[in-house]
Amino acid sequence: MSTTSLPPSLMATLPGEHYTDPQVFALEQKRIFESMWFCAVRAADLPKPGAFRTVQVGTESILISRARDNSIRAFYNVCRHRGARICTEESGEVKRAFQCPYHAWTYDLEGKLIAAPNLTKMPDLDRVEYGLVNVAVREWLGYVWVCLADEPPSFEDTVLAEVRTRLGDVASLDNYDVANLALGRRIVYDVKANWKLIVENFMECYHCATIHPELTEVLPEFADGYAAQYYVGHGAQFGDDVQGFTVDGSEGLDRIPTISDDQDRRYYAITIKPQVFVNMVPDHVIVHRMFPLAVDRTVVECDWLYLPEVVAEGKDISRSVELFHRVNEQDFEACERTQPSMSSRTYAKGGVLVPSEHHIGLFHDWVRGKIGE
Amino acid sequence: MSTTSLPPSLMATLPGEHYTDPQVFALEQKRIFESMWFCAVRAADLPKPGAFRTVQVGTESILISRARDNSIRAFYNVCRHRGARICTEESGEVKRAFQCPYHAWTYDLEGKLIAAPNLTKMPDLDRVEYGLVNVAVREWLGYVWVCLADEPPSFEDTVLAEVRTRLGDVASLDNYDVANLALGRRIVYDVKANWKLIVENFMECYHCATIHPELTEVLPEFADGYAAQYYVGHGAQFGDDVQGFTVDGSEGLDRIPTISDDQDRRYYAITIKPQVFVNMVPDHVIVHRMFPLAVDRTVVECDWLYLPEVVAEGKDISRSVELFHRVNEQDFEACERTQPSMSSRTYAKGGVLVPSEHHIGLFHDWVRGKIGE
Amino acid sequence: MSTTSLPPSLMATLPGEHYTDPQVFALEQKRIFESMWFCAVRAADLPKPGAFRTVQVGTESILISRARDNSIRAFYNVCRHRGARICTEESGEVKRAFQCPYHAWTYDLEGKLIAAPNLTKMPDLDRVEYGLVNVAVREWLGYVWVCLADEPPSFEDTVLAEVRTRLGDVASLDNYDVANLALGRRIVYDVKANWKLIVENFMECYHCATIHPELTEVLPEFADGYAAQYYVGHGAQFGDDVQGFTVDGSEGLDRIPTISDDQDRRYYAITIKPQVFVNMVPDHVIVHRMFPLAVDRTVVECDWLYLPEVVAEGKDISRSVELFHRVNEQDFEACERTQPSMSSRTYAKGGVLVPSEHHIGLFHDWVRGKIGE
Repeated sequence: MSTTSLPPSLMATLPGEHYTDPQVFALEQKRIFESMWFCAVRAADLPKPGAFRTVQVGTESILISRARDNSIRAFYNVCRHRGARICTEESGEVKRAFQCPYHAWTYDLEGKLIAAPNLTKMPDLDRVEYGLVNVAVREWLGYVWVCLADEPPSFEDTVLAEVRTRLGDVASLDNYDVANLALGRRIVYDVKANWKLIVENFMECYHCATIHPELTEVLPEFADGYAAQYYVGHGAQFGDDVQGFTVDGSEGLDRIPTISDDQDRRYYAITIKPQVFVNMVPDHVIVHRMFPLAVDRTVVECDWLYLPEVVAEGKDISRSVELFHRVNEQDFEACERTQPSMSSRTYAKGGVLVPSEHHIGLFHDWVRGKIGE
Repeated sequence: MSTTSLPPSLMATLPGEHYTDPQVFALEQKRIFESMWFCAVRAADLPKPGAFRTVQVGTESILISRARDNSIRAFYNVCRHRGARICTEESGEVKRAFQCPYHAWTYDLEGKLIAAPNLTKMPDLDRVEYGLVNVAVREWLGYVWVCLADEPPSFEDTVLAEVRTRLGDVASLDNYDVANLALGRRIVYDVKANWKLIVENFMECYHCATIHPELTEVLPEFADGYAAQYYVGHGAQFGDDVQGFTVDGSEGLDRIPTISDDQDRRYYAITIKPQVFVNMVPDHVIVHRMFPLAVDRTVVECDWLYLPEVVAEGKDISRSVELFHRVNEQDFEACERTQPSMSSRTYAKGGVLVPSEHHIGLFHDWVRGKIGE
Repeated sequence: MSTTSLPPSLMATLPGEHYTDPQVFALEQKRIFESMWFCAVRAADLPKPGAFRTVQVGTESILISRARDNSIRAFYNVCRHRGARICTEESGEVKRAFQCPYHAWTYDLEGKLIAAPNLTKMPDLDRVEYGLVNVAVREWLGYVWVCLADEPPSFEDTVLAEVRTRLGDVASLDNYDVANLALGRRIVYDVKANWKLIVENFMECYHCATIHPELTEVLPEFADGYAAQYYVGHGAQFGDDVQGFTVDGSEGLDRIPTISDDQDRRYYAITIKPQVFVNMVPDHVIVHRMFPLAVDRTVVECDWLYLPEVVAEGKDISRSVELFHRVNEQDFEACERTQPSMSSRTYAKGGVLVPSEHHIGLFHDWVRGKIGE
């Protein structure tokens, strides 16, 4: 039943327990999601000072809001007094301050403690030290990235390095001007599978011919099993008779004017570990953010971003959205079908990667390194 | 993020894991709820011999019933033969005996084994030794208190001592003649929070101004944040224009005639650890019993007790009940809002108590002592 | 509360934790259900090549199907590539091969890998070694028995030995020609109880007088508490005025012609550890298969088997089925009533077995031996 040595064509995956053991997941939460830069919310979803969103990062609830100077701040969503959640809604807006609804400890938009019952009788209570606990913040691509580490890693050496590894440079992504695109559509998927199965699925196209009929129609080279992510700088070319990146190959929306000519009629994809996928086509960008909630459950928020005028004018994006929505559904169904076998004794030593999947081995090495194996 | 030393105004609470760790809860079940006197059912709910109730005490199902001599008995709700539950209903009535519905082992109302198929062929089977396993019982305030310890602690040194600590003497409570009041209303709350959060909430009034508008209207001194339980013997005075302890301050019901003059127009509250709160006002007494079911779930049964004639004559108690029902809902919502943060790294060392909450530290010390820290 | 030594009439059962501890259940899954012959599906439910069923055996999903030569094969339901479930339906039919729906790895009906994208470019990939992982199979009584052990135990020394122990010989069971009976009815029960409670219940009749009024009417000797399984070779005799093994004692169906005269008008029962019960009466055979899914949950599939002509002609089997369906419901309710007490401290050392239950002690010894106590 077990294979002690693999033939050269094959490489082993991670052992099954990496996808089922709550202790492995707890390690990943601590050493990956709570230690790295985590893409949390779209900056445009915080339109003005006092607007806020709450998101789960690892095991923590994080409160992200826009301060009076229009900068974005992030805090642990925990009152410093007795721990009540400051905000329980997913999104909302306050005027000038966050007030804990339990004992009315009140924090300004920068997190400083500014009021509390009897506060004046507690002159020894430092209002900054007992302010909301700050979380590091960085805006990029129009998204708010947070980092719960006491000493966040370099954004350049981690997030941007992923872009360079994949595209050869960051400028190729800059061409799409993602931060200034507008949200055309957002779909949230609740996937009953470990987050690493979703990453592995996104990294390879060996499955494309089997489960993605619409996608391989638009990108014929995907039918051969090599993903756009296999070669540095490579973008998969649209089929000759394809007019746009849509479910039926019909014409897409207005092209993003700043992309280069060789980026036209091509699809590029980047995996930004641990939880972001960026997909670029001439007329839109699709951003996936994963929120791993349990060893066998991951919520994926997927945004379709277009030129602001496309969204403002209400142009019909339905066939455009439908293509990758189907891809998402096809992929997540495959992941959910795989999750239950991870506990099988036949998967105790893992499965195998074929040559067009061997690069997934680098992801597995990275995970092992992060969790200290 | 962490505070190594606190300013004098602040005291630390218990660390967050005390509210989230199932192993801590298992210790509490064993060393607190299964070792101390536990207020289980109202005696009047067992109106005659054979009437029974089943309740969960710690991890155990306990069968409480009235025997032929009208005394109240309590047993583990477990057949001595192969363990089937004797009674699965929450309440009911048998005629003369409890018969296990699996193999018909039959126990009289005192728990003795009196019949079983082929029992006469098993003369070596002692009918008392193989009777239902007894649990210690004590009636007080019209409630049945049980204790699962092999050697129950002194009722006087534990339960009654709590009353003395709070009121100065037990006579002050005796004045309300609680055992002879009648049940006007019972409301059961299923609270998704650790039982200790509910105790802590009940012990302090620092939150009153923020979440209890109706209560602070009736008891204006509560708006200052000092609970009735802060000073020995103190009862919070009704506002000058308040006619009764009702949701709108309108007139209450008939005054309990045996209370003293200085108990009139006052609210007193006692926390009887680990799971009972008693609230006294001139015309009624409110008794909370908590049933901790999981580290993050507690069922609270709340009884509103009035003079028998008030209940018998069907007087309108709705505004009277509504006041504390709102207080309950406000408090339990606050507890449920606090529970999720208990697992945050920002709460790993606990939160802080302000001066008007410092007495909660004694409760924390007591819990630590009980679970052997 | 505890009894250090038992009177001679009584024997101790297993301690309560054997029925509640997930670690004990995990041991049982590994050392019992995944190591012994397990009765999985009815062979007739796989009518032709390509027909398949999926069943859970211990912690594993097993794919059972009929091959081109009409033999039955069983495999782990796990693709050798990246682990996706091959079949997710409970039953179905493929034409010539099983194709994994994720990356299209394709296996013939004997499990050999016959196709995969780019397979020809991986000449070092052995198609048998990377075929579906085989599970040992044996057909008997018209059922497919599987064994997940690397070296399955002797079928004769385990399964058949149970029949000999109970009936004295296997020929007595052969008389019923079970493999050639037809399925009249199947009912599936989802029982919230540990599988051992169901075995113990089936092994004794001390409960019959209490919970089985219909059964003791048909088999009067059961009212005395001695089960058919107590004496080697014994079958319980129908009551004098009973015409058939039906819910009201009315006439049954056509008698199985090959049974012996002394098997007429008698009920025999066999417990084939760990998960099968066989019940024989002159005109039908009832087979229970248990699927233990959790320490406190067991699915039981019960088949009522009749002569093929009885089923083909659509004769009325309703009163025949109704008798044991009621017995099942009565038994499983008793087991569900017993499960919650298994965690009581009063059951920490177990309950007691009366003389007519003492043979259950052998089952307990067997369980202890299997899990290595």
